[in-house]
Amino acid sequence: VSTGPDVPSGRPAAVPTPAPGDPRLAQLSLNQATVKQWTLSEAVDGCARAGIPAIGLWREPVAELGVPRAAKLVAEAGLRVSSLCRGGFLTAVDDAGRRAALDDNRRAIDEAAALGTDTLVMVVGGLPEGSKDLPGARHRAAERIGDLAGHAEAAGVRLALEPLHPMYCADRAVLSTLDQALEMAAPFPAGTVGVVVDAFHVWWDPRAMAAIASAAGRIASFQVCDWVLPLPADALLARGMMGDGFVDFRPLREAVLAADYRGDTEVEIFNADVWAAPGEAVLATMTRRYLTEVLPPN
Amino acid sequence: VSTGPDVPSGRPAAVPTPAPGDPRLAQLSLNQATVKQWTLSEAVDGCARAGIPAIGLWREPVAELGVPRAAKLVAEAGLRVSSLCRGGFLTAVDDAGRRAALDDNRRAIDEAAALGTDTLVMVVGGLPEGSKDLPGARHRAAERIGDLAGHAEAAGVRLALEPLHPMYCADRAVLSTLDQALEMAAPFPAGTVGVVVDAFHVWWDPRAMAAIASAAGRIASFQVCDWVLPLPADALLARGMMGDGFVDFRPLREAVLAADYRGDTEVEIFNADVWAAPGEAVLATMTRRYLTEVLPPN
Repeated sequence: VSTGPDVPSGRPAAVPTPAPGDPRLAQLSLNQATVKQWTLSEAVDGCARAGIPAIGLWREPVAELGVPRAAKLVAEAGLRVSSLCRGGFLTAVDDAGRRAALDDNRRAIDEAAALGTDTLVMVVGGLPEGSKDLPGARHRAAERIGDLAGHAEAAGVRLALEPLHPMYCADRAVLSTLDQALEMAAPFPAGTVGVVVDAFHVWWDPRAMAAIASAAGRIASFQVCDWVLPLPADALLARGMMGDGFVDFRPLREAVLAADYRGDTEVEIFNADVWAAPGEAVLATMTRRYLTEVLPPN
Repeated sequence: VSTGPDVPSGRPAAVPTPAPGDPRLAQLSLNQATVKQWTLSEAVDGCARAGIPAIGLWREPVAELGVPRAAKLVAEAGLRVSSLCRGGFLTAVDDAGRRAALDDNRRAIDEAAALGTDTLVMVVGGLPEGSKDLPGARHRAAERIGDLAGHAEAAGVRLALEPLHPMYCADRAVLSTLDQALEMAAPFPAGTVGVVVDAFHVWWDPRAMAAIASAAGRIASFQVCDWVLPLPADALLARGMMGDGFVDFRPLREAVLAADYRGDTEVEIFNADVWAAPGEAVLATMTRRYLTEVLPPN
């Protein structure tokens, strides 16, 4: 395994790239959005070569291949599917919008089950066009989760509510903190509705550690990527490689482990510079940075 | 008073510009950063012409004129000074940085007193260069407030802790929510350390209304401007004219009034398009939008 410079920073690698089979990678997952330059098939091959034992899938590239073929591809490579991204967008005011969202989310639940993951990441949606009624949007999102819980439970899929950074509140997710996500999940069995702890979205939150500590059994996914500045023109692409920004990942990882989370650490980076780099170099940097930034020091 | 189109949107004015002396403007304040295209003297004249009875000052333009002249200018125009922006930047790790910050903040307190305002807005600062220790930075900010409280009390100036939107946590203010600001203020007399409720910074917070309800006697300033999308290249300039974005101002205003806030509503907009418009048009739009977006409907 060659060790080139880190991407996208160009900094020299701080440690050798871990070899496939390295036990330290046993709980690492590649969210496929991190290597948007690759097809699903390429991402699966890349994981196998890099010794990354799990992958987080997105519905759109899965749909391009078809769910059965995607499921087969991943299974034959021996990869776990750590999550499917994503359901949600549940804040519509009108009946037609509500029905369409429920139909689409039921399909997403079924796809998650067919892909062999019990985790469907839910981004609940922002304010409907022209509305400023934030409490109303939050209330509707909670109601729709209730509408979907039965279907999820029957399929053996957990709805993983993802609080997004407050800068996405208007247009993306009115669910903005872990406390709020836990409150939305509370009426449902922990196996049916859980929460996502994404370091990028929660690192700033003075309540994050206390919320994680109170979330035993509810944490459905742990995701990492860094907060980097300046923000890019497209704020959705603000996510950076671990170690390139301001987030202190270790305390967050220790907190989710202390809250009984036993799943994978999924690396999910949306970043134009990462997408412009060779996928192979992205995976090499990601595995190295996982060792130096996320796992405990040797 | 002529009523041109709103700036910077270009939309037709929804209501006539209120005339000077209109009692509905009795608690309105112009933060001078909203009209960065104007000198302090021009801003003071503009307020007088528009019937805006109060102004929020910034230290840099005040320093250009000199504190005594600035104080005289504002007083002779019959304006209240609703606040001085700003003290803070308290997160330095080293002794020299800490001493420099304390010295500068003591000067800011004295300037506030000399300008005739009892409110010094405090932006506590982000992570020090190279540090990822967010809890440490928060702890130091709280300690420095303790170091400054005596000087503030003696000067009759209240330190107004401003939680900034979480997107500024890394580089600007590790104080990110009202709950956190209230907790930082709690050890001190309410007249010495208070909080700022800035709609732009807190509108997304599911805890904002409860925090405001718990803040009786602690609210030192209420500021308004809108959350507009997309975010500009410089995220500090993301603040929009009320009504151009997603914020529902009335419930926030009602909540601060219910929490015994009796001060001004200060309009503080940092926005390249607002700064490119004629100052007169900015003030006319601002007074109209204050009526249609912030005050109760007729």
